[in-house]
Amino acid sequence: MGRVTERRKVIRVRDGAVSTRPDTLVAEEPLEIRLNGKPLAITMRTPGDDFALAAGFLVSEGVLGEQSDLQNIVYCAGATVDGSNTYNVVDVKTAPGVAIPDITLERNVYTTSSCGLCGKASLDAVRTTARWPIADTPPVRVEPELLASLPDRLRAAQRVFDRTGGLHAAALFAEDGELLDVREDVGRHNAVDKLVGRALQNGGLPLSRTILLVSGRASFELAQKAVMAGIPMLAAVSAPSSLAVDLAQETGLTLVGFLRGSSMNVYAGEDRIALRTAAAQG
Amino acid sequence: MGRVTERRKVIRVRDGAVSTRPDTLVAEEPLEIRLNGKPLAITMRTPGDDFALAAGFLVSEGVLGEQSDLQNIVYCAGATVDGSNTYNVVDVKTAPGVAIPDITLERNVYTTSSCGLCGKASLDAVRTTARWPIADTPPVRVEPELLASLPDRLRAAQRVFDRTGGLHAAALFAEDGELLDVREDVGRHNAVDKLVGRALQNGGLPLSRTILLVSGRASFELAQKAVMAGIPMLAAVSAPSSLAVDLAQETGLTLVGFLRGSSMNVYAGEDRIALRTAAAQG
Repeated sequence: MGRVTERRKVIRVRDGAVSTRPDTLVAEEPLEIRLNGKPLAITMRTPGDDFALAAGFLVSEGVLGEQSDLQNIVYCAGATVDGSNTYNVVDVKTAPGVAIPDITLERNVYTTSSCGLCGKASLDAVRTTARWPIADTPPVRVEPELLASLPDRLRAAQRVFDRTGGLHAAALFAEDGELLDVREDVGRHNAVDKLVGRALQNGGLPLSRTILLVSGRASFELAQKAVMAGIPMLAAVSAPSSLAVDLAQETGLTLVGFLRGSSMNVYAGEDRIALRTAAAQG
Repeated sequence: MGRVTERRKVIRVRDGAVSTRPDTLVAEEPLEIRLNGKPLAITMRTPGDDFALAAGFLVSEGVLGEQSDLQNIVYCAGATVDGSNTYNVVDVKTAPGVAIPDITLERNVYTTSSCGLCGKASLDAVRTTARWPIADTPPVRVEPELLASLPDRLRAAQRVFDRTGGLHAAALFAEDGELLDVREDVGRHNAVDKLVGRALQNGGLPLSRTILLVSGRASFELAQKAVMAGIPMLAAVSAPSSLAVDLAQETGLTLVGFLRGSSMNVYAGEDRIALRTAAAQG
Protein backbone atom coordinates (compact mmCIF):
# COMPACT_ATOMS: atom_id res chain seq x y z
CA MET A 1 0.00 0.00 0.00
CA GLY A 2 1.13 3.49 -0.68
CA ARG A 3 4.09 2.50 -2.83
CA VAL A 4 3.75 5.62 -4.95
CA THR A 5 7.35 5.42 -6.14
CA GLU A 6 9.88 2.63 -6.44
CA ARG A 7 13.63 2.69 -6.87
CA ARG A 8 15.41 1.02 -9.77
CA LYS A 9 18.97 1.15 -11.03
CA VAL A 10 19.42 3.37 -14.07
CA ILE A 11 22.30 4.01 -16.43
CA ARG A 12 22.32 7.72 -17.23
CA VAL A 13 23.80 9.02 -20.46
CA ARG A 14 24.41 12.77 -20.50
CA ASP A 15 26.35 14.20 -23.45
CA GLY A 16 28.34 11.01 -23.78
CA ALA A 17 29.07 10.62 -20.06
CA VAL A 18 27.74 7.42 -18.57
CA SER A 19 26.92 6.93 -14.90
CA THR A 20 24.96 4.44 -12.86
CA ARG A 21 22.72 5.48 -10.01
CA PRO A 22 19.38 4.68 -8.38
CA ASP A 23 16.36 6.33 -9.97
CA THR A 24 12.91 7.02 -8.59
CA LEU A 25 10.12 5.67 -10.78
CA VAL A 26 6.39 5.91 -10.52
CA ALA A 27 5.01 2.64 -9.16
CA GLU A 28 2.60 0.74 -11.39
CA GLU A 29 0.63 -2.27 -10.14
CA PRO A 30 -2.63 -3.89 -11.19
CA LEU A 31 -5.76 -3.31 -9.13
CA GLU A 32 -8.74 -5.61 -9.46
CA ILE A 33 -12.03 -3.99 -8.57
CA ARG A 34 -14.77 -6.33 -7.40
CA LEU A 35 -18.38 -5.32 -6.94
CA ASN A 36 -20.17 -7.26 -4.21
CA GLY A 37 -17.61 -10.03 -4.57
CA LYS A 38 -17.78 -10.25 -8.37
CA PRO A 39 -14.71 -9.25 -10.43
CA LEU A 40 -15.60 -6.20 -12.48
CA ALA A 41 -12.44 -4.64 -13.87
CA ILE A 42 -8.70 -4.53 -13.57
CA THR A 43 -6.78 -1.32 -14.01
CA MET A 44 -3.06 -0.57 -13.92
CA ARG A 45 -2.67 2.07 -11.26
CA THR A 46 -0.24 3.71 -8.89
CA PRO A 47 -0.86 2.19 -5.46
CA GLY A 48 -2.48 4.45 -2.88
CA ASP A 49 -6.03 5.81 -2.58
CA ASP A 50 -7.25 2.44 -3.80
CA PHE A 51 -10.62 2.65 -2.09
CA ALA A 52 -11.18 6.10 -3.57
CA LEU A 53 -10.13 4.81 -6.98
CA ALA A 54 -12.63 1.94 -6.79
CA ALA A 55 -15.41 4.22 -5.57
CA GLY A 56 -14.73 6.81 -8.26
CA PHE A 57 -14.60 4.13 -10.95
CA LEU A 58 -18.07 3.01 -9.86
CA VAL A 59 -19.35 6.59 -10.00
CA SER A 60 -18.15 6.76 -13.61
CA GLU A 61 -19.91 3.45 -14.22
CA GLY A 62 -23.18 4.76 -12.84
CA VAL A 63 -23.22 2.26 -9.95
CA LEU A 64 -22.59 4.74 -7.10
CA GLY A 65 -24.01 8.25 -6.81
CA GLU A 66 -23.93 9.18 -3.16
CA GLN A 67 -22.18 8.25 0.04
CA SER A 68 -25.11 6.16 1.28
CA ASP A 69 -24.90 3.90 -1.81
CA LEU A 70 -21.64 2.57 -0.42
CA GLN A 71 -21.67 0.04 2.42
CA ASN A 72 -17.92 -0.56 2.65
CA ILE A 73 -14.73 -1.25 0.69
CA VAL A 74 -12.14 -3.81 1.80
CA TYR A 75 -8.95 -5.34 0.47
CA CYS A 76 -9.54 -8.99 -0.30
CA ALA A 77 -7.28 -11.16 1.79
CA GLY A 78 -5.98 -14.43 0.42
CA ALA A 79 -5.57 -13.26 -3.14
CA THR A 80 -2.26 -15.09 -3.48
CA VAL A 81 -1.46 -18.80 -3.32
CA ASP A 82 0.02 -18.51 0.17
CA GLY A 83 -2.97 -16.54 1.41
CA SER A 84 -1.13 -13.27 1.87
CA ASN A 85 -2.68 -9.95 0.89
CA THR A 86 -1.26 -8.24 -2.16
CA TYR A 87 -3.36 -5.12 -1.55
CA ASN A 88 -4.18 -5.29 -5.24
CA VAL A 89 -7.77 -6.54 -5.00
CA VAL A 90 -10.55 -4.45 -3.51
CA ASP A 91 -14.17 -5.43 -3.02
CA VAL A 92 -16.83 -2.74 -3.02
CA LYS A 93 -20.01 -3.65 -1.20
CA THR A 94 -23.06 -1.57 -2.06
CA ALA A 95 -25.76 -0.68 0.44
CA PRO A 96 -28.97 -2.74 0.40
CA GLY A 97 -31.32 -1.56 -2.31
CA VAL A 98 -28.70 -0.12 -4.65
CA ALA A 99 -29.54 -1.27 -8.15
CA ILE A 100 -26.58 -2.84 -9.94
CA PRO A 101 -26.51 -2.16 -13.69
CA ASP A 102 -26.13 -5.15 -15.95
CA ILE A 103 -22.40 -5.82 -15.91
CA THR A 104 -21.58 -6.96 -19.39
CA LEU A 105 -18.27 -7.06 -21.18
CA GLU A 106 -19.09 -3.87 -22.99
CA ARG A 107 -19.93 -2.02 -19.84
CA ASN A 108 -16.60 -3.06 -18.40
CA VAL A 109 -14.46 -2.12 -21.30
CA TYR A 110 -16.45 1.05 -21.67
CA THR A 111 -14.88 2.73 -18.68
CA THR A 112 -11.33 1.69 -19.25
CA SER A 113 -10.92 3.01 -22.75
CA SER A 114 -14.08 2.74 -24.72
CA CYS A 115 -17.83 2.78 -25.27
CA GLY A 116 -20.40 1.77 -27.83
CA LEU A 117 -20.50 1.29 -31.54
CA CYS A 118 -20.22 4.86 -32.66
CA GLY A 119 -19.56 8.24 -31.19
CA LYS A 120 -23.27 8.95 -30.97
CA ALA A 121 -23.86 5.77 -28.96
CA SER A 122 -21.08 6.79 -26.59
CA LEU A 123 -22.69 10.14 -26.00
CA ASP A 124 -26.10 8.55 -25.49
CA ALA A 125 -24.68 6.11 -22.95
CA VAL A 126 -23.33 8.91 -20.80
CA ARG A 127 -26.51 10.93 -21.06
CA THR A 128 -28.72 8.05 -20.03
CA THR A 129 -26.57 7.00 -17.06
CA ALA A 130 -25.72 10.46 -15.73
CA ARG A 131 -27.49 11.14 -12.42
CA TRP A 132 -27.16 14.89 -12.34
CA PRO A 133 -27.65 17.29 -15.19
CA ILE A 134 -24.83 19.81 -15.47
CA ALA A 135 -27.20 22.55 -14.35
CA ASP A 136 -25.45 24.71 -11.80
CA THR A 137 -27.78 27.52 -10.66
CA PRO A 138 -26.56 30.20 -10.77
CA PRO A 139 -23.94 29.00 -13.25
CA VAL A 140 -20.36 28.79 -12.06
CA ARG A 141 -18.63 31.79 -13.65
CA VAL A 142 -14.88 32.33 -13.53
CA GLU A 143 -12.44 34.88 -14.89
CA PRO A 144 -9.99 33.67 -17.55
CA GLU A 145 -7.18 34.89 -15.29
CA LEU A 146 -8.33 32.53 -12.55
CA LEU A 147 -8.36 29.60 -14.97
CA ALA A 148 -4.92 30.57 -16.22
CA SER A 149 -3.53 30.43 -12.69
CA LEU A 150 -4.64 26.85 -12.04
CA PRO A 151 -1.93 24.82 -13.85
CA ASP A 152 0.84 26.44 -11.81
CA ARG A 153 -1.06 25.74 -8.64
CA LEU A 154 -1.56 22.13 -9.68
CA ARG A 155 2.14 21.73 -10.32
CA ALA A 156 2.99 23.31 -6.99
CA ALA A 157 0.69 20.86 -5.24
CA GLN A 158 1.95 17.75 -7.02
CA ARG A 159 3.88 15.62 -4.65
CA VAL A 160 5.47 13.06 -6.90
CA PHE A 161 5.57 14.35 -10.45
CA ASP A 162 8.80 16.27 -10.19
CA ARG A 163 10.62 13.23 -8.95
CA THR A 164 9.49 10.70 -11.52
CA GLY A 165 8.05 12.54 -14.52
CA GLY A 166 5.73 9.58 -14.91
CA LEU A 167 2.53 10.66 -13.23
CA HIS A 168 -0.64 12.22 -14.47
CA ALA A 169 -2.30 14.65 -12.11
CA ALA A 170 -5.89 15.74 -11.63
CA ALA A 171 -7.00 18.56 -9.34
CA LEU A 172 -10.33 19.82 -8.15
CA PHE A 173 -10.73 23.56 -7.57
CA ALA A 174 -13.61 25.56 -6.10
CA GLU A 175 -15.09 28.26 -8.31
CA ASP A 176 -13.08 30.88 -6.39
CA GLY A 177 -9.86 29.04 -7.26
CA GLU A 178 -9.34 27.27 -3.94
CA LEU A 179 -7.54 23.96 -4.42
CA LEU A 180 -9.81 21.29 -2.98
CA ASP A 181 -7.89 18.11 -3.80
CA VAL A 182 -5.17 16.77 -6.06
CA ARG A 183 -4.47 13.15 -6.99
CA GLU A 184 -1.77 11.54 -9.10
CA ASP A 185 -1.57 8.24 -10.92
CA VAL A 186 0.25 6.49 -13.74
CA GLY A 187 -3.14 6.50 -15.52
CA ARG A 188 -4.91 9.81 -15.99
CA HIS A 189 -8.34 8.20 -15.68
CA ASN A 190 -7.30 6.75 -12.32
CA ALA A 191 -6.25 10.17 -11.02
CA VAL A 192 -9.73 11.47 -11.82
CA ASP A 193 -11.41 8.40 -10.32
CA LYS A 194 -9.44 8.95 -7.10
CA LEU A 195 -10.66 12.56 -6.90
CA VAL A 196 -14.26 11.62 -7.57
CA GLY A 197 -14.14 8.63 -5.21
CA ARG A 198 -12.82 10.83 -2.41
CA ALA A 199 -15.70 13.20 -2.97
CA LEU A 200 -18.22 10.35 -2.86
CA GLN A 201 -16.72 9.02 0.36
CA ASN A 202 -17.01 12.50 1.90
CA GLY A 203 -20.60 13.01 0.76
CA GLY A 204 -19.51 15.63 -1.75
CA LEU A 205 -21.29 14.47 -4.93
CA PRO A 206 -22.40 16.02 -7.19
CA LEU A 207 -19.33 18.24 -7.52
CA SER A 208 -21.55 20.91 -8.98
CA ARG A 209 -19.49 24.01 -8.15
CA THR A 210 -16.03 22.79 -9.03
CA ILE A 211 -13.44 22.90 -11.81
CA LEU A 212 -11.56 19.74 -12.77
CA LEU A 213 -8.05 20.30 -14.13
CA VAL A 214 -6.06 17.49 -15.76
CA SER A 215 -2.38 17.61 -16.58
CA GLY A 216 -2.60 16.12 -20.05
CA ARG A 217 -5.17 15.76 -22.79
CA ALA A 218 -8.95 15.71 -22.53
CA SER A 219 -10.28 12.46 -23.94
CA PHE A 220 -13.88 11.35 -24.14
CA GLU A 221 -13.30 9.23 -21.06
CA LEU A 222 -12.23 12.16 -18.91
CA ALA A 223 -15.14 14.29 -20.09
CA GLN A 224 -17.42 11.36 -19.26
CA LYS A 225 -16.02 11.12 -15.73
CA ALA A 226 -16.59 14.85 -15.20
CA VAL A 227 -20.19 14.58 -16.35
CA MET A 228 -20.88 11.49 -14.23
CA ALA A 229 -19.61 13.34 -11.15
CA GLY A 230 -21.66 16.44 -11.92
CA ILE A 231 -18.57 18.60 -12.51
CA PRO A 232 -19.49 21.63 -14.69
CA MET A 233 -15.99 22.59 -15.93
CA LEU A 234 -13.14 20.48 -17.29
CA ALA A 235 -9.85 22.18 -18.14
CA ALA A 236 -6.88 20.41 -19.72
CA VAL A 237 -3.33 21.57 -20.25
CA SER A 238 -3.27 19.85 -23.65
CA ALA A 239 -5.62 19.02 -26.52
CA PRO A 240 -9.14 17.61 -26.36
CA SER A 241 -10.44 14.97 -28.74
CA SER A 242 -13.40 15.46 -31.07
CA LEU A 243 -15.63 13.19 -29.00
CA ALA A 244 -14.76 14.95 -25.75
CA VAL A 245 -15.91 18.21 -27.36
CA ASP A 246 -19.09 16.59 -28.63
CA LEU A 247 -19.91 15.22 -25.19
CA ALA A 248 -19.24 18.59 -23.57
CA GLN A 249 -21.47 20.40 -26.05
CA GLU A 250 -24.26 17.87 -25.62
CA THR A 251 -24.23 17.82 -21.81
CA GLY A 252 -23.45 21.47 -21.13
CA LEU A 253 -19.99 20.78 -19.71
CA THR A 254 -17.52 23.64 -20.08
CA LEU A 255 -14.44 22.28 -21.82
CA VAL A 256 -11.18 24.23 -21.92
CA GLY A 257 -8.05 22.94 -23.67
CA PHE A 258 -4.47 24.14 -24.15
CA LEU A 259 -4.61 26.02 -20.84
CA ARG A 260 -1.08 27.45 -20.89
CA GLY A 261 0.16 30.79 -19.58
CA SER A 262 -2.56 33.33 -20.31
CA SER A 263 -3.86 31.36 -23.30
CA MET A 264 -6.66 28.85 -23.55
CA ASN A 265 -9.10 27.37 -26.03
CA VAL A 266 -12.74 27.11 -25.03
CA TYR A 267 -14.56 24.31 -26.84
CA ALA A 268 -17.92 24.26 -25.06
CA GLY A 269 -19.87 25.93 -22.28
CA GLU A 270 -18.22 29.33 -22.69
CA ASP A 271 -21.02 30.95 -20.63
CA ARG A 272 -19.15 29.89 -17.50
CA ILE A 273 -16.09 31.94 -18.48
CA ALA A 274 -16.19 35.72 -18.14
CA LEU A 275 -14.82 36.50 -21.59
CA ARG A 276 -14.50 40.10 -22.73
CA THR A 277 -16.15 41.21 -25.97
CA ALA A 278 -14.68 39.33 -28.88
CA ALA A 279 -11.76 41.26 -30.33
CA ALA A 280 -11.93 39.42 -33.62
CA GLN A 281 -14.14 36.92 -35.37
CA GLY A 282 -12.24 34.64 -37.76
CA MET B 1 -13.06 5.72 -42.28
CA GLY B 2 -9.88 7.67 -42.08
CA ARG B 3 -11.35 10.57 -40.18
CA VAL B 4 -8.05 11.30 -38.46
CA THR B 5 -9.03 14.85 -37.62
CA GLU B 6 -12.31 16.69 -37.21
CA ARG B 7 -13.15 20.37 -37.15
CA ARG B 8 -14.90 22.07 -34.26
CA LYS B 9 -15.54 25.68 -33.40
CA VAL B 10 -13.21 27.03 -30.72
CA ILE B 11 -13.09 30.29 -28.79
CA ARG B 12 -9.44 31.30 -28.47
CA VAL B 13 -8.25 33.44 -25.59
CA ARG B 14 -4.78 34.94 -26.08
CA ASP B 15 -3.61 37.53 -23.54
CA GLY B 16 -7.13 38.74 -23.01
CA ALA B 17 -8.05 38.85 -26.71
CA VAL B 18 -10.96 36.63 -27.65
CA SER B 19 -11.60 35.22 -31.13
CA THR B 20 -13.70 32.49 -32.64
CA ARG B 21 -12.41 30.19 -35.35
CA PRO B 22 -12.52 26.58 -36.49
CA ASP B 23 -10.00 24.26 -34.83
CA THR B 24 -8.64 20.91 -35.95
CA LEU B 25 -9.00 18.18 -33.33
CA VAL B 26 -7.87 14.62 -33.26
CA ALA B 27 -10.80 12.34 -34.04
CA GLU B 28 -11.81 9.86 -31.36
CA GLU B 29 -14.33 7.10 -31.99
CA PRO B 30 -14.99 3.71 -30.42
CA LEU B 31 -13.84 0.57 -32.23
CA GLU B 32 -15.28 -2.80 -31.33
CA ILE B 33 -12.98 -5.70 -32.10
CA ARG B 34 -14.66 -9.05 -32.68
CA LEU B 35 -12.83 -12.33 -32.90
CA ASN B 36 -14.53 -14.86 -35.17
CA GLY B 37 -17.80 -13.00 -34.69
CA LYS B 38 -17.61 -12.72 -30.91
CA PRO B 39 -17.21 -9.29 -29.28
CA LEU B 40 -13.83 -9.16 -27.60
CA ALA B 41 -12.98 -5.58 -26.72
CA ILE B 42 -13.84 -1.98 -27.40
CA THR B 43 -11.19 0.68 -27.58
CA MET B 44 -11.41 4.42 -28.12
CA ARG B 45 -9.22 5.10 -31.13
CA THR B 46 -8.49 7.52 -33.91
CA PRO B 47 -10.15 6.11 -37.05
CA GLY B 48 -7.83 4.75 -39.71
CA ASP B 49 -5.64 1.64 -39.84
CA ASP B 50 -8.47 -0.16 -38.09
CA PHE B 51 -7.58 -3.60 -39.46
CA ALA B 52 -3.97 -3.13 -38.39
CA LEU B 53 -5.14 -1.98 -34.97
CA ALA B 54 -7.29 -5.09 -34.55
CA ALA B 55 -4.52 -7.39 -35.76
CA GLY B 56 -1.95 -5.77 -33.50
CA PHE B 57 -4.29 -5.94 -30.53
CA LEU B 58 -4.61 -9.68 -31.11
CA VAL B 59 -0.82 -10.05 -31.30
CA SER B 60 -0.59 -8.39 -27.88
CA GLU B 61 -3.27 -10.77 -26.67
CA GLY B 62 -1.35 -13.81 -27.89
CA VAL B 63 -4.03 -14.79 -30.41
CA LEU B 64 -2.09 -13.98 -33.59
CA GLY B 65 1.61 -14.54 -34.19
CA GLU B 66 2.11 -14.73 -37.91
CA GLN B 67 0.46 -13.66 -41.13
CA SER B 68 -0.95 -17.13 -41.79
CA ASP B 69 -2.86 -17.09 -38.48
CA LEU B 70 -5.08 -14.43 -40.01
CA GLN B 71 -7.79 -15.40 -42.50
CA ASN B 72 -9.33 -11.97 -42.99
CA ILE B 73 -10.60 -8.82 -41.32
CA VAL B 74 -13.81 -7.08 -42.32
CA TYR B 75 -15.96 -4.21 -41.16
CA CYS B 76 -19.25 -5.55 -39.84
CA ALA B 77 -22.12 -4.13 -41.81
CA GLY B 78 -25.44 -3.49 -40.18
CA ALA B 79 -24.06 -2.40 -36.86
CA THR B 80 -26.62 0.37 -36.58
CA VAL B 81 -30.39 0.24 -36.32
CA ASP B 82 -30.84 1.33 -39.91
CA GLY B 83 -28.32 -1.24 -41.13
CA SER B 84 -25.69 1.25 -42.22
CA ASN B 85 -22.02 0.67 -41.57
CA THR B 86 -20.41 2.84 -38.91
CA TYR B 87 -16.94 1.49 -39.71
CA ASN B 88 -16.53 1.13 -35.97
CA VAL B 89 -16.85 -2.64 -35.69
CA VAL B 90 -14.29 -5.03 -37.17
CA ASP B 91 -14.39 -8.81 -37.17
CA VAL B 92 -11.12 -10.72 -37.26
CA LYS B 93 -11.39 -14.24 -38.62
CA THR B 94 -8.55 -16.57 -37.72
CA ALA B 95 -7.26 -19.27 -40.03
CA PRO B 96 -8.44 -22.85 -39.41
CA GLY B 97 -6.44 -24.49 -36.66
CA VAL B 98 -5.48 -21.32 -34.81
CA ALA B 99 -6.03 -21.96 -31.12
CA ILE B 100 -8.12 -19.26 -29.46
CA PRO B 101 -7.12 -18.57 -25.85
CA ASP B 102 -9.90 -18.61 -23.31
CA ILE B 103 -11.43 -15.16 -23.62
CA THR B 104 -12.38 -14.22 -20.12
CA LEU B 105 -13.15 -10.83 -18.69
CA GLU B 106 -9.69 -10.59 -17.20
CA ARG B 107 -7.98 -11.36 -20.47
CA ASN B 108 -9.97 -8.60 -22.07
CA VAL B 109 -9.31 -5.91 -19.55
CA TYR B 110 -5.73 -7.07 -19.40
CA THR B 111 -4.75 -5.53 -22.69
CA THR B 112 -6.62 -2.31 -22.38
CA SER B 113 -5.16 -1.16 -19.11
CA SER B 114 -4.43 -4.03 -16.82
CA CYS B 115 -3.35 -7.57 -15.96
CA GLY B 116 -3.37 -9.93 -13.01
CA LEU B 117 -3.48 -9.62 -9.28
CA CYS B 118 0.01 -8.38 -8.63
CA GLY B 119 2.96 -7.14 -10.57
CA LYS B 120 4.53 -10.59 -10.51
CA ALA B 121 1.41 -12.15 -12.05
CA SER B 122 1.45 -9.51 -14.77
CA LEU B 123 5.04 -10.37 -15.64
CA ASP B 124 4.27 -14.09 -15.60
CA ALA B 125 1.30 -13.61 -17.91
CA VAL B 126 3.46 -11.94 -20.54
CA ARG B 127 6.22 -14.49 -20.20
CA THR B 128 3.88 -17.44 -20.64
CA THR B 129 2.06 -15.99 -23.65
CA ALA B 130 5.05 -14.53 -25.49
CA ARG B 131 5.80 -16.50 -28.65
CA TRP B 132 9.32 -15.30 -29.26
CA PRO B 133 12.05 -14.82 -26.72
CA ILE B 134 13.79 -11.47 -27.09
CA ALA B 135 16.90 -13.25 -28.30
CA ASP B 136 18.29 -11.41 -31.28
CA THR B 137 21.45 -13.12 -32.50
CA PRO B 138 23.77 -11.30 -32.83
CA PRO B 139 22.19 -8.74 -30.51
CA VAL B 140 21.01 -5.51 -32.02
CA ARG B 141 23.61 -2.92 -31.01
CA VAL B 142 23.19 0.80 -31.57
CA GLU B 143 25.16 3.91 -30.80
CA PRO B 144 23.64 6.32 -28.26
CA GLU B 145 23.90 9.03 -30.94
CA LEU B 146 21.64 7.00 -33.23
CA LEU B 147 19.06 6.61 -30.46
CA ALA B 148 19.27 10.32 -29.69
CA SER B 149 18.43 11.17 -33.29
CA LEU B 150 15.19 9.18 -33.36
CA PRO B 151 12.75 11.53 -31.57
CA ASP B 152 13.41 14.34 -34.05
CA ARG B 153 12.90 11.93 -36.91
CA LEU B 154 9.66 10.73 -35.39
CA ARG B 155 8.39 14.29 -35.04
CA ALA B 156 9.37 15.04 -38.62
CA ALA B 157 7.42 12.02 -39.81
CA GLN B 158 4.30 12.73 -37.80
CA ARG B 159 1.53 13.81 -40.03
CA VAL B 160 -1.13 14.99 -37.64
CA PHE B 161 0.47 15.81 -34.29
CA ASP B 162 1.48 19.34 -35.14
CA ARG B 163 -2.03 20.21 -36.17
CA THR B 164 -3.94 18.87 -33.17
CA GLY B 165 -1.49 18.31 -30.31
CA GLY B 166 -3.73 15.42 -29.31
CA LEU B 167 -2.07 12.38 -30.80
CA HIS B 168 0.37 9.87 -29.46
CA ALA B 169 2.87 8.54 -31.95
CA ALA B 170 4.77 5.28 -32.21
CA ALA B 171 7.53 4.59 -34.72
CA LEU B 172 9.45 1.54 -35.74
CA PHE B 173 13.10 1.95 -36.75
CA ALA B 174 15.59 -0.54 -38.17
CA GLU B 175 18.77 -1.03 -36.17
CA ASP B 176 20.60 1.28 -38.60
CA GLY B 177 18.10 4.04 -37.83
CA GLU B 178 15.95 3.70 -40.93
CA LEU B 179 12.37 4.72 -40.21
CA LEU B 180 10.21 1.72 -41.07
CA ASP B 181 6.77 2.92 -40.05
CA VAL B 182 5.02 5.51 -37.92
CA ARG B 183 1.46 5.44 -36.60
CA GLU B 184 -0.54 7.93 -34.57
CA ASP B 185 -3.59 7.58 -32.37
CA VAL B 186 -5.44 9.28 -29.56
CA GLY B 187 -4.42 6.24 -27.46
CA ARG B 188 -0.74 5.40 -27.23
CA HIS B 189 -1.47 1.66 -27.00
CA ASN B 190 -3.46 1.89 -30.23
CA ALA B 191 -0.55 3.54 -32.06
CA VAL B 192 1.66 0.59 -31.09
CA ASP B 193 -1.03 -1.93 -32.01
CA LYS B 194 -1.32 -0.31 -35.43
CA LEU B 195 2.44 -0.67 -36.00
CA VAL B 196 2.49 -4.27 -34.86
CA GLY B 197 -0.63 -5.17 -36.80
CA ARG B 198 0.85 -3.74 -39.99
CA ALA B 199 3.92 -5.87 -39.45
CA LEU B 200 1.79 -8.98 -38.94
CA GLN B 201 -0.19 -8.27 -42.09
CA ASN B 202 3.08 -7.93 -44.02
CA GLY B 203 4.57 -11.13 -42.60
CA GLY B 204 7.09 -9.14 -40.57
CA LEU B 205 6.73 -10.70 -37.12
CA PRO B 206 8.71 -11.12 -34.98
CA LEU B 207 10.13 -7.60 -35.25
CA SER B 208 13.41 -8.89 -33.93
CA ARG B 209 15.78 -6.30 -35.36
CA THR B 210 13.83 -3.13 -34.69
CA ILE B 211 13.56 -0.27 -32.23
CA LEU B 212 10.15 0.92 -31.06
CA LEU B 213 9.95 4.61 -30.14
CA VAL B 214 6.92 6.05 -28.35
CA SER B 215 6.19 9.75 -27.92
CA GLY B 216 5.15 9.61 -24.28
CA ARG B 217 5.75 7.40 -21.29
CA ALA B 218 6.62 3.73 -21.17
CA SER B 219 3.97 1.87 -19.21
CA PHE B 220 3.81 -1.84 -18.50
CA GLU B 221 1.31 -2.18 -21.32
CA LEU B 222 3.65 -0.74 -23.95
CA ALA B 223 6.55 -2.89 -22.76
CA GLN B 224 4.23 -5.88 -22.98
CA LYS B 225 3.28 -5.03 -26.55
CA ALA B 226 6.95 -4.76 -27.51
CA VAL B 227 7.71 -8.16 -25.97
CA MET B 228 4.69 -9.81 -27.60
CA ALA B 229 5.84 -8.57 -31.02
CA GLY B 230 9.43 -9.70 -30.45
CA ILE B 231 10.79 -6.14 -30.46
CA PRO B 232 14.14 -6.02 -28.60
CA MET B 233 14.33 -2.27 -27.86
CA LEU B 234 11.72 0.15 -26.52
CA ALA B 235 12.61 3.83 -26.23
CA ALA B 236 10.35 6.48 -24.73
CA VAL B 237 10.61 10.25 -24.72
CA SER B 238 9.30 10.33 -21.17
CA ALA B 239 9.39 8.24 -17.98
CA PRO B 240 8.89 4.49 -17.61
CA SER B 241 6.92 2.93 -14.78
CA SER B 242 8.37 0.50 -12.26
CA LEU B 243 6.52 -2.45 -13.77
CA ALA B 244 7.67 -1.62 -17.29
CA VAL B 245 11.26 -1.74 -16.02
CA ASP B 246 10.62 -5.03 -14.22
CA LEU B 247 9.15 -6.59 -17.36
CA ALA B 248 12.07 -5.37 -19.47
CA GLN B 249 14.62 -6.77 -17.03
CA GLU B 250 12.83 -10.09 -16.85
CA THR B 251 12.38 -10.57 -20.60
CA GLY B 252 15.65 -9.05 -21.83
CA LEU B 253 13.97 -6.06 -23.48
CA THR B 254 16.15 -2.97 -23.75
CA LEU B 255 14.23 -0.09 -22.16
CA VAL B 256 15.31 3.53 -22.64
CA GLY B 257 13.46 6.45 -21.05
CA PHE B 258 13.76 10.25 -21.08
CA LEU B 259 15.27 10.16 -24.58
CA ARG B 260 15.78 13.90 -25.06
CA GLY B 261 18.56 15.72 -26.87
CA SER B 262 21.75 13.78 -26.25
CA SER B 263 20.47 12.43 -22.91
CA MET B 264 18.78 9.17 -22.05
CA ASN B 265 18.23 6.80 -19.17
CA VAL B 266 18.80 3.10 -19.79
CA TYR B 267 16.73 0.92 -17.45
CA ALA B 268 17.34 -2.57 -18.86
CA GLY B 269 19.14 -4.41 -21.63
CA GLU B 270 22.06 -1.96 -21.82
CA ASP B 271 24.10 -4.53 -23.77
CA ARG B 272 22.30 -3.38 -26.91
CA ILE B 273 23.61 0.18 -26.52
CA ALA B 274 27.25 0.93 -27.32
CA LEU B 275 28.00 2.87 -24.14
CA ARG B 276 31.50 4.18 -23.49
CA THR B 277 33.27 3.28 -20.26
CA ALA B 278 31.39 4.62 -17.26
CA ALA B 279 32.72 8.06 -16.42
CA ALA B 280 31.32 7.96 -12.94
CA GLN B 281 29.61 5.52 -10.63
CA GLY B 282 27.23 7.19 -8.25
